Amino acid sequence: MSELKLVIAGAAGRMGQAILHEALKQPAIKIIAGLEAPGHAAQGKDLGCLANLPAIGAKVESDPLTVIAKADVIIDFTRPQVSLTLADLAAQARIVHVIGTTGFDNADEARINAAARHATIIKSGNMSLGVNLLAGLVELAARALGPAFDIEIVELHHRLKVDAPSGTAQLLGQAAAQGRDARLDDLRSQPHHGHTGPRASGTIGFASLRGGSVVGDHTVIFAGEGERIELTHRAEDRTIFATGALKAALWGQGKGPGLFDMQDVLGLRPRI
Amino acid sequence: MSELKLVIAGAAGRMGQAILHEALKQPAIKIIAGLEAPGHAAQGKDLGCLANLPAIGAKVESDPLTVIAKADVIIDFTRPQVSLTLADLAAQARIVHVIGTTGFDNADEARINAAARHATIIKSGNMSLGVNLLAGLVELAARALGPAFDIEIVELHHRLKVDAPSGTAQLLGQAAAQGRDARLDDLRSQPHHGHTGPRASGTIGFASLRGGSVVGDHTVIFAGEGERIELTHRAEDRTIFATGALKAALWGQGKGPGLFDMQDVLGLRPRI
Amino acid sequence: MSELKLVIAGAAGRMGQAILHEALKQPAIKIIAGLEAPGHAAQGKDLGCLANLPAIGAKVESDPLTVIAKADVIIDFTRPQVSLTLADLAAQARIVHVIGTTGFDNADEARINAAARHATIIKSGNMSLGVNLLAGLVELAARALGPAFDIEIVELHHRLKVDAPSGTAQLLGQAAAQGRDARLDDLRSQPHHGHTGPRASGTIGFASLRGGSVVGDHTVIFAGEGERIELTHRAEDRTIFATGALKAALWGQGKGPGLFDMQDVLGLRPRI
Amino acid sequence: MSELKLVIAGAAGRMGQAILHEALKQPAIKIIAGLEAPGHAAQGKDLGCLANLPAIGAKVESDPLTVIAKADVIIDFTRPQVSLTLADLAAQARIVHVIGTTGFDNADEARINAAARHATIIKSGNMSLGVNLLAGLVELAARALGPAFDIEIVELHHRLKVDAPSGTAQLLGQAAAQGRDARLDDLRSQPHHGHTGPRASGTIGFASLRGGSVVGDHTVIFAGEGERIELTHRAEDRTIFATGALKAALWGQGKGPGLFDMQDVLGLRPRI
Repeated sequence: MSELKLVIAGAAGRMGQAILHEALKQPAIKIIAGLEAPGHAAQGKDLGCLANLPAIGAKVESDPLTVIAKADVIIDFTRPQVSLTLADLAAQARIVHVIGTTGFDNADEARINAAARHATIIKSGNMSLGVNLLAGLVELAARALGPAFDIEIVELHHRLKVDAPSGTAQLLGQAAAQGRDARLDDLRSQPHHGHTGPRASGTIGFASLRGGSVVGDHTVIFAGEGERIELTHRAEDRTIFATGALKAALWGQGKGPGLFDMQDVLGLRPRI
Repeated sequence: MSELKLVIAGAAGRMGQAILHEALKQPAIKIIAGLEAPGHAAQGKDLGCLANLPAIGAKVESDPLTVIAKADVIIDFTRPQVSLTLADLAAQARIVHVIGTTGFDNADEARINAAARHATIIKSGNMSLGVNLLAGLVELAARALGPAFDIEIVELHHRLKVDAPSGTAQLLGQAAAQGRDARLDDLRSQPHHGHTGPRASGTIGFASLRGGSVVGDHTVIFAGEGERIELTHRAEDRTIFATGALKAALWGQGKGPGLFDMQDVLGLRPRI
Repeated sequence: MSELKLVIAGAAGRMGQAILHEALKQPAIKIIAGLEAPGHAAQGKDLGCLANLPAIGAKVESDPLTVIAKADVIIDFTRPQVSLTLADLAAQARIVHVIGTTGFDNADEARINAAARHATIIKSGNMSLGVNLLAGLVELAARALGPAFDIEIVELHHRLKVDAPSGTAQLLGQAAAQGRDARLDDLRSQPHHGHTGPRASGTIGFASLRGGSVVGDHTVIFAGEGERIELTHRAEDRTIFATGALKAALWGQGKGPGLFDMQDVLGLRPRI
Repeated sequence: MSELKLVIAGAAGRMGQAILHEALKQPAIKIIAGLEAPGHAAQGKDLGCLANLPAIGAKVESDPLTVIAKADVIIDFTRPQVSLTLADLAAQARIVHVIGTTGFDNADEARINAAARHATIIKSGNMSLGVNLLAGLVELAARALGPAFDIEIVELHHRLKVDAPSGTAQLLGQAAAQGRDARLDDLRSQPHHGHTGPRASGTIGFASLRGGSVVGDHTVIFAGEGERIELTHRAEDRTIFATGALKAALWGQGKGPGLFDMQDVLGLRPRI
């Protein structure tokens, strides 16, 4: 079997570098190019050297059209506008596009949907296998336990994180809401603070903690009469997001066009 | 709809009393009798009085044949020999038999299977909804994550518990093994103690903690490269076992003969 | 050694009953009376019968003056106005007064201080040994770790609790602030919600979770660069508050007048 | 104030590199040399270059006598035989010696004690601030709670760790035993496994979990009637051991000869 030809968008950035390091460990994958904007300091450099490693014979380039024409898959943790352009090109080239970018609006989502008529797009706000599995478990638990179990989602991140709750907490909340056949926005409760009165039944609560250098911990609590279930994910290291993206890239080969997420990659979708 | 007519085996015991208290809260259930061995101090007493409550017009009786003839369901947390006799009678009467008893050997299991050709038997080593849901989640997670994630099961119980690991930890270990299409006995590792060398891949570890008055906490850890998932159940109160048994009793109505467990009651079976 | 003669204020209430049950287990303690308001349904009843136990020869009475005159100690989980009256009487009788009541204002506190010139008053918002030990540990940790470690306090209580954060979370927050030689009100941060920006250094955060039947879990997180410490208390059962009050009652014998708290009872005060 | 002149023993190793990176961030510290055995591949290299950073004008050298003569402090995570030699030289030079090496036998310990008559030696099996603080808290808690609370110590480490329980778990167990005025070897219980009978009062249990890439989590549980306390340390990153060693180095300046540990550095010793 031939190797998978990979392009890394944003190759000089933090996630790009993480993907580079992980991809170099996998014999089934051949990195053929990185992408950065024209004028970027890394332009023209060998990707190996960029990572303080031996040269690998693949460079940072600036023209997505050229590199995508030779690629089987492009992995992309960049910004919405970049990702939309890449999705269009991936559609023309009928290749796999793994999108870890976040922050798309509704119009953006529609354009990605359109591109997925010709490209194999795998898109998720959190590419780690663990979180995506957890989302599947949360949906299943919410469905099985019903509204007699109160749901609270707690997350802990490093002190520099500027928004709360985290995108991953939202993703878990959506999974919980889906398990109740509802939309998260209809179930979301305000933070419990001050004179709250008894907890409103059926709502989903969120609490955010910030401190130190924590990569990211998430716990979903289902609290019922006399018992509770706590489902936790702990990210120890940011490389898990790179590992997840590469698993998605390999999974996407031969799948044909469509819009997928990490639930599909994990094989959880048909079971739940 | 008419009420469900319930017989409580071992009505004067700790679990029998817990079931009595919970059943009295449910209007859909009518307790028609309790069972204890002939000569038991509670014989002939009204079940309400036995629980320091107003009389309910149902008594502790000694002849299972008579009471089962009038019943829709019998709930039974007793001893294997008692449960086998009740299963035979439940088969003759074609009613629902909820079995929370543990400690059956292979011959016993075969006899229960035979009874389930005519009775609707729901049997589990742990009747709590939470633990049974957790077992389903554990199986799903073990399957999705594969052997690259190491599995460790930790349980904490009160200081008086005399065996380790707990039966529930075993149940969770079996679920994990099933998620890997293997038998627990083939994957079970010895406790990590002394000079162990690196962890053997694919094994399932157990650790038991004992202290204080803890009703029962169980955590299944899936530890991979850079991330981990921890699935926890905390039992706060023993009434959850009674609640689970009553849910099973209601679920069993109209199901027809067969051997079921709490996975079926929770509706998890067909999804995983 | 003679037995400790105990009066239970609010003897028919939930905490009064818990104290009654626990006190009956301790041979060093003799219950001589309960107190309830004149006209209360329990007036005149034997305290044993009130608890569905054999009679103990001590009754529910209505005149605090009479019973305090014969007592060594009074335990009191009632309301501020009742506790203030009892503190005055305890001062006159020069006995021990254990106060678990909460909700005193500044004027009330001053009056209790005045009573403590003649009575031995032990007062705490949480009488459990575990929480009070935890408060001591939190103060010590906050002092040793300094502001480079961010402090977050998380608590989980049952769905019926009507205010947040819990009084115990506040007590732990005060201990943390004291470890930084500051007042909690100067360090308390708003809940992390929405676009918060990076965490403000030196602040103490609170998050409250509500669900099911949880008696009360509290965790204080100290999160630094590359490591964190989590100090947790789990209350399994409300009887721990009764046990703590009785330990305080016994500790107070022969101590002489003064205002003490559970830190003193535990012997933590002089060490920190 | 002049800078602290630091020598890093084992500068090319994993801990040496971690100390180098952390020391470069601290303006109060000036690295003057690294040490490796004669013939080591790193001999003569600039320490900055060794870490893929700009040159710092300090090299890897092979003669401890020469470099210690110019130093204020040497930090040393090596092997017992190396550490003993360095302790002797530190004594002659009357400088500070921070020892993170483990595995000393009794004769080694005696020799380190002798060296500490002239050197300022700070030695600990775990140089992280968090774990050492936790040990102090554990001792305090064990003393305050007494044997009515059962103690269990659980630790989770990566799958490659070859021994169990971890050295840090042992350190925490010793702290717990000290809080009971006993030796750990007299209180240590066997793993709870099989038909154990009720838990022996007063013992200290250990459980070790192994999986994935976990740097190191430790929890000490104190389980009593109706409540429990759980004291947890989570190491996210190995740099905390370097940070702790540097804090020790700075603390040791001007302390005079003696044998100290991280409890002294944290200022916990006199309080407990």
